[in-house]
Amino acid sequence: MINQFAIIVAGGSGNRMGSKIPKQFLPIAGKPILMHTIERFLEVSPTIQVILVLPSHQMNDWHLLCDQHDFYPAIITTNGGATRFQSVKNGLKCVRVKDGLVAVHDGVRPFVDVETIRQTYQIAAQDGAAVVAVAPKDSLRVVDQTGNKAVDRTAYRIIQTPQIFRLDWMQKAFETEDKPFFTDCASVLEHAGYAITLVDGNYENIKITTPEDLVWAEAFLSPK
Amino acid sequence: MINQFAIIVAGGSGNRMGSKIPKQFLPIAGKPILMHTIERFLEVSPTIQVILVLPSHQMNDWHLLCDQHDFYPAIITTNGGATRFQSVKNGLKCVRVKDGLVAVHDGVRPFVDVETIRQTYQIAAQDGAAVVAVAPKDSLRVVDQTGNKAVDRTAYRIIQTPQIFRLDWMQKAFETEDKPFFTDCASVLEHAGYAITLVDGNYENIKITTPEDLVWAEAFLSPK
Repeated sequence: MINQFAIIVAGGSGNRMGSKIPKQFLPIAGKPILMHTIERFLEVSPTIQVILVLPSHQMNDWHLLCDQHDFYPAIITTNGGATRFQSVKNGLKCVRVKDGLVAVHDGVRPFVDVETIRQTYQIAAQDGAAVVAVAPKDSLRVVDQTGNKAVDRTAYRIIQTPQIFRLDWMQKAFETEDKPFFTDCASVLEHAGYAITLVDGNYENIKITTPEDLVWAEAFLSPK
Repeated sequence: MINQFAIIVAGGSGNRMGSKIPKQFLPIAGKPILMHTIERFLEVSPTIQVILVLPSHQMNDWHLLCDQHDFYPAIITTNGGATRFQSVKNGLKCVRVKDGLVAVHDGVRPFVDVETIRQTYQIAAQDGAAVVAVAPKDSLRVVDQTGNKAVDRTAYRIIQTPQIFRLDWMQKAFETEDKPFFTDCASVLEHAGYAITLVDGNYENIKITTPEDLVWAEAFLSPK
């Protein structure tokens, strides 16, 4: 059986929320967002090793929240770095086997579909690098110094997480230095020469960043 | 003074809402979405002539709702067509002057900022074609038969409405037949050879399409 890992990256502050509490700790349906996110992966399979990457100064609060919510999954916690690239790299150091698949997922995306995670692991097992994406719903234009023009939006995908990779590919790709165009792990793997397979995601898999997102989230989790 | 028009296009059903009521008629803060949207334009200036384009079979319900909500702005209503292109064209036929600026706006985008509308009219008066857009928050990839690759997301814009044009440019551009790549009015004007100026919009200016969007909308309008 393939070793499966999930690096959950949660480095956010509460700034855009207008809150002193880091957004990943804010509750939806009575429980911190980050716990919902972790549970999605444990639902896929309890054998997935979750590696939680958090800023060191948030560790106390996280563990207090775990006590409050009686939340004790066997997950690894490790300190985040100055950038997302560095945080993922720190998470990767916690993987101590030689083979496996490593998912990277945003801590504030609790609405990823469990079937999507499962399918993305499967496709990554086959192709080496699988990344969840959705088609844009709005028109897109590309801009340069001379102006802007419409592009065929059907040729584009908006990239989400999870992004799942072969461990050895990922280790190799993350040997490099951080670069300004590394906006996600897929760009790091691509830079190292690996091809990325896209997997259809769900639009509800939003990154919770504003107070309105939080209300949306509450609505999404309430009984239909 | 420049004649200002606003074609509000509302052709939606309630399908994705799981509702028999067309989504533009669903209430937020006790009032149909479409009325909120129309009010944004009347807030900009009561002299803006609003032209509401609705499917003919929704006209009865719309007028009943106007009675219920004591909503009687002096707006023109006209029947929608089979496509958005045709609907906008129908709205354009209601403009009976020679010069002016015509905004096109989605009926289910009630959260457009009033200042943004004002600014977009101003820029359209100057440049001829002004379209509201925001920068993508997620990574983007472009796909073709051979695979996909990361693109520099800072070079892209997600296009919203309002889209505001010189009346004569618009009339000229809409003389053509509908085309599959006409995903918005900007693409129609561009096809006719006119340059588009982009105007920074607000992320809250969402198109309300799902039940969760509706709850989000309710929260957005509630006292902060």
